[in-house]
Amino acid sequence: MTFSYLIGLHCPKCKEQYNADQIRQLCVCGSPLLADYDLHALKKEVTPGHLQGRIPDLWRYHELLPVREKSHVVTLGEGMTPLLSMPRIGSEMGIPNLLMKDEGIIPTGSFKARGAAVGVSKAKELGIKELAMPTNGNAGAAWALYAARAGIKASIVMPVGAPEITRNECAISGAHLCLVNGLISDAGKIIGQAVKEYGFYDASTLKEPYRIEGKKTMGLEIAEQLGWKVPDVILYPTGGGVGLIGIFKAFRELAQIGWIEERLPRLVAVQAAGCAPIVKAWNERKRESEFWPDSATAAFGINVPKALGDFLVLEAIYESEGCAIAVEDADLLEEQGRIARYEGAFVCPEGAAAFAAARRLRENGWIREEDTVIALNTGSGIKYPETVRIDVPILQPGERINLE
Amino acid sequence: MTFSYLIGLHCPKCKEQYNADQIRQLCVCGSPLLADYDLHALKKEVTPGHLQGRIPDLWRYHELLPVREKSHVVTLGEGMTPLLSMPRIGSEMGIPNLLMKDEGIIPTGSFKARGAAVGVSKAKELGIKELAMPTNGNAGAAWALYAARAGIKASIVMPVGAPEITRNECAISGAHLCLVNGLISDAGKIIGQAVKEYGFYDASTLKEPYRIEGKKTMGLEIAEQLGWKVPDVILYPTGGGVGLIGIFKAFRELAQIGWIEERLPRLVAVQAAGCAPIVKAWNERKRESEFWPDSATAAFGINVPKALGDFLVLEAIYESEGCAIAVEDADLLEEQGRIARYEGAFVCPEGAAAFAAARRLRENGWIREEDTVIALNTGSGIKYPETVRIDVPILQPGERINLE
Repeated sequence: MTFSYLIGLHCPKCKEQYNADQIRQLCVCGSPLLADYDLHALKKEVTPGHLQGRIPDLWRYHELLPVREKSHVVTLGEGMTPLLSMPRIGSEMGIPNLLMKDEGIIPTGSFKARGAAVGVSKAKELGIKELAMPTNGNAGAAWALYAARAGIKASIVMPVGAPEITRNECAISGAHLCLVNGLISDAGKIIGQAVKEYGFYDASTLKEPYRIEGKKTMGLEIAEQLGWKVPDVILYPTGGGVGLIGIFKAFRELAQIGWIEERLPRLVAVQAAGCAPIVKAWNERKRESEFWPDSATAAFGINVPKALGDFLVLEAIYESEGCAIAVEDADLLEEQGRIARYEGAFVCPEGAAAFAAARRLRENGWIREEDTVIALNTGSGIKYPETVRIDVPILQPGERINLE
Repeated sequence: MTFSYLIGLHCPKCKEQYNADQIRQLCVCGSPLLADYDLHALKKEVTPGHLQGRIPDLWRYHELLPVREKSHVVTLGEGMTPLLSMPRIGSEMGIPNLLMKDEGIIPTGSFKARGAAVGVSKAKELGIKELAMPTNGNAGAAWALYAARAGIKASIVMPVGAPEITRNECAISGAHLCLVNGLISDAGKIIGQAVKEYGFYDASTLKEPYRIEGKKTMGLEIAEQLGWKVPDVILYPTGGGVGLIGIFKAFRELAQIGWIEERLPRLVAVQAAGCAPIVKAWNERKRESEFWPDSATAAFGINVPKALGDFLVLEAIYESEGCAIAVEDADLLEEQGRIARYEGAFVCPEGAAAFAAARRLRENGWIREEDTVIALNTGSGIKYPETVRIDVPILQPGERINLE
């Protein structure tokens, strides 16, 4: 059987087509490239039944992934993260069918592992020896560790404000790591220079076409976990937006091969009020966003002032009849605590933003009571200790707990 | 179909039997209690085929778990963690069939989630409203979060030296948390007092009989992931030792129901040289350990100077023809870095100790080249940032990476 049905790459802007067996970065027109599969053949030859008995990781969908040879797969067991019911907070919000896709339960503790697993595997297949990327922390950590497993050398630049633990992850992997006194856009410029100077493979968001294929598997899993049903709403914390584009691509491909009905979930781009370029563009019904000056938020992963794939994110929102919404830091941090106390889940601030957005959208009626709603938690709260205020008494041995 | 085949509890020391539908802590003789199942009925009525199509979490083994009603299950999607090949470090060690069971890929980032999920679920089934426990950090974090999901109030005491992130996990869950200027044994005394004073359910290691049932699922999963085959060696970082006892119990139960052959993996208790009471007892061929004074190690989770279940750990080692081995902190920290650079996995120091032990046991011939060897990584390295030394250059925006 065919391991991958990949047939090529195309540019969603200028429609140029490319051979996928050569190293590709952006289109000549400057747009990201997207992977194409022979969905006609796939539809004839593969059914959901074929997935039965496969290991519960994202490679169970290998026919819809770009790696041609199984031996090139670089895996740490990523994927098939839990889809959990959230009955207490859901009933409090008035959304009885509220679910969380928990991407904290994955290697490196964040959903960035998906893009790294597929991106690094394909880089290995293409013969890449050295890659480089800017990061808000979690993507760099994931790519550094998967690159180490693949025997690829990684160079990573991240803002000094990125979650500290992600520095440790890069450092222990043996990657070449630098911090920058600035934002991810500053890190991006430094990487751009290094790519020119040293000839590195540029693994920046959407500058290679395969990270998005890894992120796509979130959509494939949600569909499978719901028994090949389409949920009504998916809320996605949006920085670079690759996951949202990927989920959109997943549902379109699944419909094309007939595994689900021809219907899209309404996709919601959730941003922080301190960095909301997609929300602004959506409010103005634009097809592209503008650079958001002086961006700031506690949800560091979504502090992306201008995303390369903004036009694809906006297309996914318009096509799916979704929306974009900004959340204040105070609200998302309050929601983070509520999720832990009510549901026992310690989510990252970005994930908490998705819940805060669900609450707002239910209040204003955009989400209906009968909707099946999925909030995507992009990572584990344990990577963000600074978001939890603690004040703990210290006892001496022999002292007693005083609950009075 | 029967959800659980639980029939009762028994004392492994004095053989007293107990009804499992009432709240139980220790036996009247002071020993931990173990859960019994109707394995004859289970053998007749359930086969591995029944597991097909079940969700990939530890509840797929519900017949061998103590929760009677599905509605009492408190889950965050724990279990079916990856069993990963470790080809590069394995070949360097001379163990081509070296595998890692990666318990970092689980809610709360440590294998303690298994014991908490099953222990809290059973506590909920028994009607418990308040529980208390001492912890070296990870167990307390897991029990606090699962208790929150169950609507049970938790009181936790941990040493000031426990991993800081575990404080945040307890705090955000809404648990009552205290630190103690001392070791887990000091925390244990404070909890003992609080249990007397306030009537809490005592969730201390092995003082309730169900945490071990959760840990047992590591053994069930390993067997299933190997296609119902028994590995030759399992290396387990041993503090309280519940996981080792649980894995031993798992392989015995699986053999009794005929799902695997009648053979045990050789179980290796790995301890830190700074806290090695089980190793000392094993070296002296004793059945119980002695309190280890002034214990100290960077692998905080295995800093347990005297385990309540020591006699069960030693029995499992003797019966399985295993061994016990101590590892220096310097060696385990070096191994932690090597695992990240060679395999892309950021393991916790306790997990790294298991690999360092495998290396030593291969060198002295106790592990043979042809053995299938599983090192158990008990948690994610991201919970232990202080184990990684980092020295990262900081660039100003516009500066360049200098690789010369």
